[in-house]
Amino acid sequence: MLNDFEKTKPEDKDALNREIKELRARLMAQQQLLREKKLPVLVLIEGWSAAGKGSLIKELISEIDPRFYQVFSPAVTPEREMRYPFMYPYASVIPENGKIVFLDSGWMESTVQKSLKTEISRGEYQRRIRAVNEFERQLRDGGYLLLKIFLHIDKDEQFERLQGLTENADTAWRVAADDLWQHREYKRFLKTYDEFMEATNETIHWHVLDGRRRKTAVRDALKLLVNRIDKGLEKGRYVGEPFEEKFPLLEMPRLKDVDLSPAIEDEDYKKELKKLQTRLSELHNILYRKKIPVILCYEGWDAAGKGGNIRRVAHPLDPRGFDVHPIASPEPHELNRQFLWRFWTRLPRSGHICIFDRTWYGRVMVERLEGFCTEKDWKRAYNEINEFERQLTDWGAVVLKFWIHIDQDTQLARFTDRQNTPEKQWKITEEDWRNREKWPQYEEAVDEMLRKTSTKNAPWFIIESNDKKFARIKALKIIVKELEKACEEHFARSFE
Amino acid sequence: MLNDFEKTKPEDKDALNREIKELRARLMAQQQLLREKKLPVLVLIEGWSAAGKGSLIKELISEIDPRFYQVFSPAVTPEREMRYPFMYPYASVIPENGKIVFLDSGWMESTVQKSLKTEISRGEYQRRIRAVNEFERQLRDGGYLLLKIFLHIDKDEQFERLQGLTENADTAWRVAADDLWQHREYKRFLKTYDEFMEATNETIHWHVLDGRRRKTAVRDALKLLVNRIDKGLEKGRYVGEPFEEKFPLLEMPRLKDVDLSPAIEDEDYKKELKKLQTRLSELHNILYRKKIPVILCYEGWDAAGKGGNIRRVAHPLDPRGFDVHPIASPEPHELNRQFLWRFWTRLPRSGHICIFDRTWYGRVMVERLEGFCTEKDWKRAYNEINEFERQLTDWGAVVLKFWIHIDQDTQLARFTDRQNTPEKQWKITEEDWRNREKWPQYEEAVDEMLRKTSTKNAPWFIIESNDKKFARIKALKIIVKELEKACEEHFARSFE
Repeated sequence: MLNDFEKTKPEDKDALNREIKELRARLMAQQQLLREKKLPVLVLIEGWSAAGKGSLIKELISEIDPRFYQVFSPAVTPEREMRYPFMYPYASVIPENGKIVFLDSGWMESTVQKSLKTEISRGEYQRRIRAVNEFERQLRDGGYLLLKIFLHIDKDEQFERLQGLTENADTAWRVAADDLWQHREYKRFLKTYDEFMEATNETIHWHVLDGRRRKTAVRDALKLLVNRIDKGLEKGRYVGEPFEEKFPLLEMPRLKDVDLSPAIEDEDYKKELKKLQTRLSELHNILYRKKIPVILCYEGWDAAGKGGNIRRVAHPLDPRGFDVHPIASPEPHELNRQFLWRFWTRLPRSGHICIFDRTWYGRVMVERLEGFCTEKDWKRAYNEINEFERQLTDWGAVVLKFWIHIDQDTQLARFTDRQNTPEKQWKITEEDWRNREKWPQYEEAVDEMLRKTSTKNAPWFIIESNDKKFARIKALKIIVKELEKACEEHFARSFE
Repeated sequence: MLNDFEKTKPEDKDALNREIKELRARLMAQQQLLREKKLPVLVLIEGWSAAGKGSLIKELISEIDPRFYQVFSPAVTPEREMRYPFMYPYASVIPENGKIVFLDSGWMESTVQKSLKTEISRGEYQRRIRAVNEFERQLRDGGYLLLKIFLHIDKDEQFERLQGLTENADTAWRVAADDLWQHREYKRFLKTYDEFMEATNETIHWHVLDGRRRKTAVRDALKLLVNRIDKGLEKGRYVGEPFEEKFPLLEMPRLKDVDLSPAIEDEDYKKELKKLQTRLSELHNILYRKKIPVILCYEGWDAAGKGGNIRRVAHPLDPRGFDVHPIASPEPHELNRQFLWRFWTRLPRSGHICIFDRTWYGRVMVERLEGFCTEKDWKRAYNEINEFERQLTDWGAVVLKFWIHIDQDTQLARFTDRQNTPEKQWKITEEDWRNREKWPQYEEAVDEMLRKTSTKNAPWFIIESNDKKFARIKALKIIVKELEKACEEHFARSFE
């Protein structure tokens, strides 16, 4: 893409200025249409050091009302990059509906640099490419307008610019060691940029602009942006089609075939609980040091005993190293973004454990059944979720998912108990009774969910919870076993 | 406080266990009452290294539903501490209504350590003490229940524990160089802890617990917590009284006395604009390198021209180094916290510029006039805001506040223009017309605000904006002048 790039010709300055002015006026008018149609726009500006990415963004935003855009330079916070999954810094700053986000370099620069520095293996490079493609497709399918621009200058031009910056005392600090290194390695960068763009050009096309002529680049970028938005406004919000992807799935039983009779004696429970909690506490120490992130997902019927189960798991953990995220219905600023955003932003730092009390699977259960999203949305979600979880496990996270299971009679008994016990009344609402009436529909949805999302890397476990104590021990046993395995594998993985 | 501390006596283990169990049951019952009464609880646990802060928190939370609490260890993110105001890591994690936040060490440990390492001057130490007292009072006055616990062990006990941790390969990593340093400097720490606690004991009392006997400490901490909550529930949400504090105030004219005739010729405007923007761009470079944070606050009448003014200021800035925060009415998760929380969390990193399009002054304007808070709340807010801004300028920030001023006739003309121009219609709402009817009440509120909050360190500037171009030039001139001053003072300050 960069090799066959044709340089732009000089243009009449006044004509360029007129065009830019016109495009800016159009962009200004588009702002409120974006707001009305609730369309989010994400603009990624990548390019060579000293190509003028910052100035280009400055020109793009100059007439946009500050209420409608934000600019992020994710690269400036290395802590985030080291302690979170690759796409985290970008996934956490996606715009909400009606707004534009400009990214001053992003997933491309980070990947290319790390690859050339051999800080990431070839395998990791390929995983990143896949994650990028998944991320872009998920946003597009979720109604986002995306625009990707690469600002190109040749080696001579870069030399002049870097020299200019370095010679001026006020700007010298802007030239970092990495910029000079890039210049020296211009050829290798060119090849790798090209390769990266080829590999991520399918869902959202790259646009290469000539960074040498600033005004021309501004005009071209504005034109791309205005046209992209126009097309988006004209077509209305896009809803992506469901698609098939092969994930290595584990076989899951249907809920109705699960034997719910398992129970445990009180004495055994106490003994096992203590033993498992002690072991979990030790494991937490090891995970913390090895910086392995752990994500435990709890779903289940109302009154199945999720809360008590989670408390038994959390109890032995060092409070400085874990979080429990209770997931309620989304707040407005969450509803206004792609559905996984509120989970991306709640991910644990590496070495931490985080427990989700309800999860992103709301998409294929309550949102599906209550019509909070379209049919295409929830049907697409199985794959989107599998992709999301694969990105988590690629990062090195242990992802375990529990379906806390009871039968209808047990639920009724617990509901009635809650209703009749003053301290427990807050736990039972009208909504719980309404949900109960939809048991068959939920069961169908859960069966489909378990069938389609129990991947090898992020498996589901059905936890029989008619006897809550049995359920706690079973969950703890699984957690301990899987974490022990993860600690061993972590060692092996370091040779990859 | 630590010198006259009396050690606890051993107690009967079974009796202790019974008490703990009872207290836990009470805490469990309190959870939902807290939620119903919408009371937030903040528990700060400080103490010696190896005193058992983590385990204590573990015991405190063990029966609380994860939906109702969060644990934070703000110390683990040093980046935040270096690039943000002292209280930022704590102010940004305060609980929302109905929830409990446990802080595993906080503003005390950070201050005492830095003071003993002479990383902060005596003056900075005193400013921190003041900031802590202000922070605690503001939370209390905002209806928060606060509890501060210090976990105490003597030098011998600390020795044994550190030794125990060090000798075990699995726990040795938990002992950091700073812990050993604290142990060596036990006496100096003791004195400084004591001094800190004396200095911050007025609004919210410290409770010193004996860390040597874990069970006793758990019982005592639970008792303190349960009693604190009981008292809070019984009395209902506290609303703090307004109070007088002397800030060095600048004299401000009344709005009606402001001459709105100033205007600028088009030619002069263009020339001045270019000159000022160029200079501002240079200054941004310098500020960035010196890591001086800049906070520009815009308030003003509807249609006064805030947006256009802000755009002219933002245009010359490097988009990587500034943010514009448009402030709309608060979202639910913002409404559920102290009113300054949503501004604390939007503060710029040091070296960055941030522009607030509307600000925390909503408290004493729209919230006052629309009854969104109590009279006591907005009357108290003048001082709370002055304190907040002093903490910002103590941190080194430049805080400039602009009241963009027009008269009623000009507003009417602009409203009418907006109404009649399709591209501008989104800018005008029913609410704007309603607000317009309350002009006299708003004028009174603004006059009071300008009189009470134009401090020397964070001054207000009235910007005559009947002629928008004049207003832009005036604001830019002030910004350039004040930033030049700040760059000079930054050098002087480094000798403090």
